Amino acid sequence: MTSSVAKTRMVTLASRPDGEPGPENFDVVTAPVPELRDGQLLVRNIYMSVDPAMRGRMETTEKHYTTNFTVGDPLDGSAVGEVIASTLPAVAVGSHVRHRLGWREHAVVDAATATPVDPSTAALPDWLGILGQTGFTAYVGLTRAGRLAKGDTVFVSAAAGAVGSAAGQFARLLGADRVIGSAGGPKKARFLVDELGFDAGIDYRDDLSAGLDAAAPAGIDLYFDNVGGEHLVAALYALRERGRVALCGMISDMRDRDSSPAISHLIQATLKRLTIQGFIVRDHEDLRAEFEATVSAWLREGKVRSQATVSTGIENAPDAFLSMLTGGNVGKALVQLSEESA
Amino acid sequence: MTSSVAKTRMVTLASRPDGEPGPENFDVVTAPVPELRDGQLLVRNIYMSVDPAMRGRMETTEKHYTTNFTVGDPLDGSAVGEVIASTLPAVAVGSHVRHRLGWREHAVVDAATATPVDPSTAALPDWLGILGQTGFTAYVGLTRAGRLAKGDTVFVSAAAGAVGSAAGQFARLLGADRVIGSAGGPKKARFLVDELGFDAGIDYRDDLSAGLDAAAPAGIDLYFDNVGGEHLVAALYALRERGRVALCGMISDMRDRDSSPAISHLIQATLKRLTIQGFIVRDHEDLRAEFEATVSAWLREGKVRSQATVSTGIENAPDAFLSMLTGGNVGKALVQLSEESA
Repeated sequence: MTSSVAKTRMVTLASRPDGEPGPENFDVVTAPVPELRDGQLLVRNIYMSVDPAMRGRMETTEKHYTTNFTVGDPLDGSAVGEVIASTLPAVAVGSHVRHRLGWREHAVVDAATATPVDPSTAALPDWLGILGQTGFTAYVGLTRAGRLAKGDTVFVSAAAGAVGSAAGQFARLLGADRVIGSAGGPKKARFLVDELGFDAGIDYRDDLSAGLDAAAPAGIDLYFDNVGGEHLVAALYALRERGRVALCGMISDMRDRDSSPAISHLIQATLKRLTIQGFIVRDHEDLRAEFEATVSAWLREGKVRSQATVSTGIENAPDAFLSMLTGGNVGKALVQLSEESA
Repeated sequence: MTSSVAKTRMVTLASRPDGEPGPENFDVVTAPVPELRDGQLLVRNIYMSVDPAMRGRMETTEKHYTTNFTVGDPLDGSAVGEVIASTLPAVAVGSHVRHRLGWREHAVVDAATATPVDPSTAALPDWLGILGQTGFTAYVGLTRAGRLAKGDTVFVSAAAGAVGSAAGQFARLLGADRVIGSAGGPKKARFLVDELGFDAGIDYRDDLSAGLDAAAPAGIDLYFDNVGGEHLVAALYALRERGRVALCGMISDMRDRDSSPAISHLIQATLKRLTIQGFIVRDHEDLRAEFEATVSAWLREGKVRSQATVSTGIENAPDAFLSMLTGGNVGKALVQLSEESA
C-alpha cells in the first residue's frame, strides 16, 4: 500500500429519466474514499466507458438487465486505471487494471473483480473498446448469436458506433464475403467504407430499405442489430432464407417506442425460417480468451482499426453519455479522467 | 385401370383478396378430368384439408411461401381419397392415398406425389389432421424450432385450432411439465382443459397477459406461436431467460397489420436471451417417420384426441376456409367431398 486519497469526484444518479435521459438525471459529487480492506485496490481511473446499456439500468421498468442503478448512488461501468495502492503482493502499485467501477475518479476495487491489462499489448483505450466488452460483444454476437459462416453477407446497424464498428471489421476477418453498415449521415456512411473497409455504407436518414437493396441485391445472411425499429424491419425483408438476426441493443426502439413499426413484420421470420437470437455477453465468458488472443493479434497486424471519441473530465461524463445516445460519437465513447502517466 | 370420370367439380381462385378474403375470391366450376398418363392415379377425394397457409398463397405479396395460386386455376391442398383408376400395378384400385390435389372432387395425381394411407391404422380424417401435415407441424415446431425440453412450461396460442390442439397434447407427451393454451371464448378455453388435458385454458378475449400470468406465475419456457400480435407480445414478457419461441403461423397479424403492437417489444428477446425461430415444416421430412410412428402409437393407446370440424360438399369448401380464419373451427378443419365407402 502506498498512496491514499481522501476524497474523489463521482457521478451519481440524481433521478430516473422520464422518457429521454437528460443532464438533470446526473449529479457530480465529491465523496470520501473508504479505507482499503484486505483484498482491495485503490485505482486512479484513467479512462471510463460510456455504454448504451446504462440507459436501461437508469430506468426501473426493465428488470432483467444486470443490476439497475439506485437514485443517489454512484453509477458504474467499465474503466481502466493505475493501481495506486494495493493490499495484495500480486498486484503491483503502478500496474494497470480494468474493472467495473467507472464514473468516479478514484475507485476502491475488490481485486477479484479487476483484470490486469498490459498497456504494451494494446493502448489503454483499446482495453475498454475493441479489446474490451465492446469488442467482445461484437465477437460473441457474430460467432455465437449470429452463427457467422464463411461467405455470409453481413449487415450491421449503428456501424459507426462502438460495437458496430468492431462487428463490421470482425465479420470480414471471420470470413464474411460482404459487409454492409448503416450510420447516421453521409460522412459516417463514407467513413465505414473509407476507413473501416466495409463494402457499403448506408446513410439511414435516406431510404434505408432502398439502400440495403442496392448494397445487397441478393439479400443478407446475418443482421447484427444494434438499434431495432425500422432497421430491424428492413433487415427482416432483406434476409435470405435461413438468415439470422443477432439482437444486441435496440437503442432506437428504447427511444421511440410509440413510433415503432409493427411486430407483424415478424411474419418474415416464418416465411424464411429465420433465427432471431437475443444474447447477453456475460453468458459467453468461455469465449473471452479466444477473443483476446484473436483481436490483439489483429490489432498488432494492423488488420482492425480501433476508433474512439474521447471526452475529458468527469464533469463531462453525463454529456458524453447523452451525446452517444443520439449518435454523437464515432467508435467507442470514452471519458478520460486522468493522465495516462501521472 | 378401371373407373373413369369425365368431369369433376373444383374450386378455383376467382380473384386475389384485397385485405380479408371473402366468398367472392372463389369459384366452384365443373371441368373435364384429363386422361391418365403413365404413373398417374385417378383419385376420388373423400376428405380435403382447409389450411391457414392457403391465405398467404392467395396473395401476391408474400413471395416466399411455397407456390402462390394463380387466378383462374384450381386451388390445391392436402386430401385423402380412394384410388379409382391406376396405371401402376403397385397401387391397387380401392386403396387409399394422401396427396396434394384437394379442392376438387376427383384428382389426377402423379403416383410419386401420393402416399398410401391405411384406414385401419387411423381414421381417414386423422391422416389429414393429427397424423398429417397439421400434426407434423406441431411436432416439428415443438421439437425442432422450439427445442422442447423435459420440464418445460409450454404456452400454445390458437390451442383449440388444428395445429394448436395437437401441439398442446404432444407437448405434454414429449415431457412438458405444464401446458397452457389460449382460445377464443370461455367454451373453447374450457375445452382445452376438460377434453385435451391442458393445465390451463385462457380466453384471449379477456386480459391475455393477466391470464398468462395467472396460469404460469413462474413464466414460460416455450411459446408455440400460431397467431403473432398481442399473443406474441404477451409471451415475450412471460418467457423466462433463455426461453424459445417457435413461429408457426401469425394468422391474427396477417389479418390486423394496422393494429399490430410494436416490434420494440422484441427488446425482451435481448434482455432474456430468447431464441425466436421461424420454421417451415417441409424442411423437416427427415422427422416424418419418427412422427408417424410416435403419434400413431399415441392414437392407438388413446393418449391423444383427434379433433375435427367437418363440412360437407365441395360447394361449402370456401366457407369452411373463411370460417376457419375467424376461429369457427375446433381442431382440424376438413371438408368431406364424398362418402368413405362409395
